[in-house]
Amino acid sequence: MIRHIVLFTWTEAATDEQKATVTTELRKLPGAIPQLRSYTVGGDAGINQGNYEYAVVADFDSVEDYLVYRDHPQHQAVIAEHIKPILASRAAVQLAL
Amino acid sequence: MIRHIVLFTWTEAATDEQKATVTTELRKLPGAIPQLRSYTVGGDAGINQGNYEYAVVADFDSVEDYLVYRDHPQHQAVIAEHIKPILASRAAVQLAL
Repeated sequence: MIRHIVLFTWTEAATDEQKATVTTELRKLPGAIPQLRSYTVGGDAGINQGNYEYAVVADFDSVEDYLVYRDHPQHQAVIAEHIKPILASRAAVQLAL
Repeated sequence: MIRHIVLFTWTEAATDEQKATVTTELRKLPGAIPQLRSYTVGGDAGINQGNYEYAVVADFDSVEDYLVYRDHPQHQAVIAEHIKPILASRAAVQLAL
């Protein structure tokens, strides 16, 4: 299994509507990319100080399936249209489990 | 459910043995902290450039259970003795799912 993990912080100018649209658009991807075995996305719960603001955890059966997701046009469109315009920083890891 | 996600990068001076010890020690925690429902830890798979180097994803039934893990002496000892000495940067999010 491959577990893809990415954390974001947003720009100060990012609006609540823009942040919510990221979730709305990402949650459409499992319907378009059947390689996604599990997909959890959302904003930080506010328990701790100093956290990043958003997380995506996506599970795949194989590296090949992860690459289908990574390079999928609908995923790339969400990144280009909704994430990059409000992105301040990004941290990612892929785990082979 | 609370999903706790944390990504690390290591210092340039960190040795392979020190990095491997982080995994060895973290994997002892589910035996000591029954609140851990799922626990995946490990180094980046090397698929993409520019990634962080290490990830922890821990699932809990509740915020209270997550706090037991966060503040547990055995967890705090792993952080103090094995993670902090080689830690360069850290990014974390808790998701309420």
